[in-house]
Amino acid sequence: MIERIRQKLSVLDDLDSTRIWVIGVSGGPDSLCLLDAMHLAGKRIVAAHLNHCLRSEADQEAEQVRWAVEQYGIPFVLKVVDVSAYAERDSLSIEEAARIVRYRFLFDEAVRFDARAVLVGHTADDQVETVLMHLLRGAGLEGLKGMESCQLPNAWSKEIPLVRPLLSLWRQETVAYCLERGLHPVMDPSNLERTYYRNRLRLELIPVLETYAPNIKEIVIRMAETLRGDQQVLEPVVAAAWQTCLRQAGAGYAAFEKENFQAQQVGIKRRLLRKAMDLQRPGLRDIGFETIERALHFVQKPEPTGQLDLAAGLRLFVEGELIWIAAWEADLPGMGWPQIRNGGEPIRLSLPGTAGLADGWQLHLEEALDLDEGRQKALVNTDPYQVWLDAGHLVSGLVVRGRHPGDRIKPLGMEGHAVKIADLMINEKMPRRARAGWPLVCCGDEVIWVPGYATSHSSRVSQETRRIYHLWLARAGRSAG
Amino acid sequence: MIERIRQKLSVLDDLDSTRIWVIGVSGGPDSLCLLDAMHLAGKRIVAAHLNHCLRSEADQEAEQVRWAVEQYGIPFVLKVVDVSAYAERDSLSIEEAARIVRYRFLFDEAVRFDARAVLVGHTADDQVETVLMHLLRGAGLEGLKGMESCQLPNAWSKEIPLVRPLLSLWRQETVAYCLERGLHPVMDPSNLERTYYRNRLRLELIPVLETYAPNIKEIVIRMAETLRGDQQVLEPVVAAAWQTCLRQAGAGYAAFEKENFQAQQVGIKRRLLRKAMDLQRPGLRDIGFETIERALHFVQKPEPTGQLDLAAGLRLFVEGELIWIAAWEADLPGMGWPQIRNGGEPIRLSLPGTAGLADGWQLHLEEALDLDEGRQKALVNTDPYQVWLDAGHLVSGLVVRGRHPGDRIKPLGMEGHAVKIADLMINEKMPRRARAGWPLVCCGDEVIWVPGYATSHSSRVSQETRRIYHLWLARAGRSAG
Repeated sequence: MIERIRQKLSVLDDLDSTRIWVIGVSGGPDSLCLLDAMHLAGKRIVAAHLNHCLRSEADQEAEQVRWAVEQYGIPFVLKVVDVSAYAERDSLSIEEAARIVRYRFLFDEAVRFDARAVLVGHTADDQVETVLMHLLRGAGLEGLKGMESCQLPNAWSKEIPLVRPLLSLWRQETVAYCLERGLHPVMDPSNLERTYYRNRLRLELIPVLETYAPNIKEIVIRMAETLRGDQQVLEPVVAAAWQTCLRQAGAGYAAFEKENFQAQQVGIKRRLLRKAMDLQRPGLRDIGFETIERALHFVQKPEPTGQLDLAAGLRLFVEGELIWIAAWEADLPGMGWPQIRNGGEPIRLSLPGTAGLADGWQLHLEEALDLDEGRQKALVNTDPYQVWLDAGHLVSGLVVRGRHPGDRIKPLGMEGHAVKIADLMINEKMPRRARAGWPLVCCGDEVIWVPGYATSHSSRVSQETRRIYHLWLARAGRSAG
Repeated sequence: MIERIRQKLSVLDDLDSTRIWVIGVSGGPDSLCLLDAMHLAGKRIVAAHLNHCLRSEADQEAEQVRWAVEQYGIPFVLKVVDVSAYAERDSLSIEEAARIVRYRFLFDEAVRFDARAVLVGHTADDQVETVLMHLLRGAGLEGLKGMESCQLPNAWSKEIPLVRPLLSLWRQETVAYCLERGLHPVMDPSNLERTYYRNRLRLELIPVLETYAPNIKEIVIRMAETLRGDQQVLEPVVAAAWQTCLRQAGAGYAAFEKENFQAQQVGIKRRLLRKAMDLQRPGLRDIGFETIERALHFVQKPEPTGQLDLAAGLRLFVEGELIWIAAWEADLPGMGWPQIRNGGEPIRLSLPGTAGLADGWQLHLEEALDLDEGRQKALVNTDPYQVWLDAGHLVSGLVVRGRHPGDRIKPLGMEGHAVKIADLMINEKMPRRARAGWPLVCCGDEVIWVPGYATSHSSRVSQETRRIYHLWLARAGRSAG
């Protein structure tokens, strides 16, 4: 048994170095076996124990682990965290909270000791239970493939691997090892409590499954292994699709190009959505496929409108040619749209003059001194961001401001018919986020120009026009704000 | 309910035609619902019923189905097969035998009627049971992804799809449909017998799983759907690898190029092995991943020797640069090796003369008339399939024959040291299959030349040589045999 375990540790040789290994030691047979075998192999170790404060025996157990570790002359790190309080605060299950607190602790210590890796004592039994838990909670390949024996990057670090050297060993074998080596594991009585989901699985469900397939545990292990192989094959395919589809990503958001995204196979789409969510919520484990299916269904609608609440404070929406996955609180990048500063307060335009808008945009006003030329330009203009207007209708001066409720315009070419600015924006598919701050050029209460979209019929240049204003919107380069 | 089922049938519109649909009708609520809905939709149908002869009520049920079908004025086809006998003959479980016999019948009828598709009444419940059965028996993605609603090619046909229009409907919904439409399904009492694995699953295991995850059935359906998406992504990747790795395939065999195969990811290797097996045993369902793992382990050995018994009469072996997967009984193609005809009987060579070997190979003998030129050629020869020898040592004449037990040669350059021909062949890595029939040129009992591998030291051309024989092996093109 000792020899078998030594062989298992040989996976570490690929990673070996003179650096320190941080081992998570609960004190159970798995972690004690791992600690002892690492010590026998002559590795430099730090043993780290988290006291979860979940049971009355926890303090005493922590001391027992300290004593065992100190027998080896190995440095011991103890942390005490009230996991119940943490779980309550973040609305997590006790098990999930314990997991998060524990790994954060182990990786913090690994950083502190400049460790080569974090080692934990998961066995094949843990693997079986993990896979079955994923299955029962609803999972695809990512869940069914189970844990990896060496995981990098992981949810806790991009540089420090999470290593599980005992993953192909049954729990019973670690118990046998402890017996053989005269080690005294802490026997956690909560392992027998069926209120914990994982324990019910181990103590009740697996024995039932064994009546259908006596070797169900081996079957699940093999299944997970096979699926890990499939996952490896998929990874580069998904990475390539990610490159093809991603337009931009930043703190709290990612945006795909709709057309490229839609051209992908459905299996790829699911994975792109999941990856975009993972990116913003690393380590989050409750992205069920129900969430992914809702997202998929949403983006596959012919014209997805509104925002879809995904999970974990993330939302999905489609805007123009982009599919956005973003945190609700994220400050999304503008798309280079012209926008009014400061909530749309009116700015009076002087003649000639320039009004500074947000993000480097400027609105310019000039008089066209050559009337014929102005008339001609008004006629052939195809640039939606400039316009020539009849100044005779604009004697009370021009302001540029954001949208007011009830704003209307009688657009050129619509024979004096008034439309609500709000409806115009919707009909023209102006991105929702751009609407409130879109600059409107007004004369008194009347909206004269919606840059990019519409010009007022009454202000058009005609044969009767005697003075012409030339207005244009341009971007001077990014301003300070 | 009627409207919902009509919608389900709309998947057929993509396939629709004026051709006939063959429906497998057991008489249960699923197939009766399907039959009725197809009839209402105005399709041209043939109803096909297999009497499995497994229960005493079977004859009576067949008549009940006939009566129901004839009410619609739909053609009815009945076949009676003793499935127990068939199962016994081929050592199959009753369930597996019934499945094979039933589908073979349905597809035979489909061919006979030039049908557009074969339709069966599988529901979402069948899907859940199928996926769980695969899981318990050990499966990868192929099993866990469950049944497809439209499967083509399938194990029974490359042209006629197998369609399951009710696959997203629960069994209870088909029962409700039958009630609503006043249909009287056959109630198969064996559905309640727990001796059948599938029934135990339905009646016992699923209710247990529901205590862990109340919506386990929906979860399994979603999981299967997600995995089908992944499978679709993998398919083109595997197809490309197949193209890269496959050297040849024929009736009963496929051969991969070892180097290309070894360069693939492990997930791809597994799938290539499975695909090669599928190709030779279409419809075979017992290629468990245990078989694939054994195969993978075998080919990953540094020097795999011998043959590995896979499953279903298939074997795996590595020969030179090729990995073979072949039926034990398959007549494998030669690799263009020179081989003796007719089991290696000796052929006497005349001077000058030619001996015909197998597959177009010929052994030629001539005397080199220009002694100096012969000596020179002997010296610079680099072609392993020709040789110049001292005729003075070959006065008793030459024969070409296959290997005899105990054959030895004292090869040129080994200072008169004798090696067994058998060892020489092994050391030189001559393909195993080529060894027995490899042509040996002999003088009396002495092996003089092993074309491609060794020449006898004693027959070498030297300064004392007074007459020179020139021997060469060449392929004239494929002969009749």
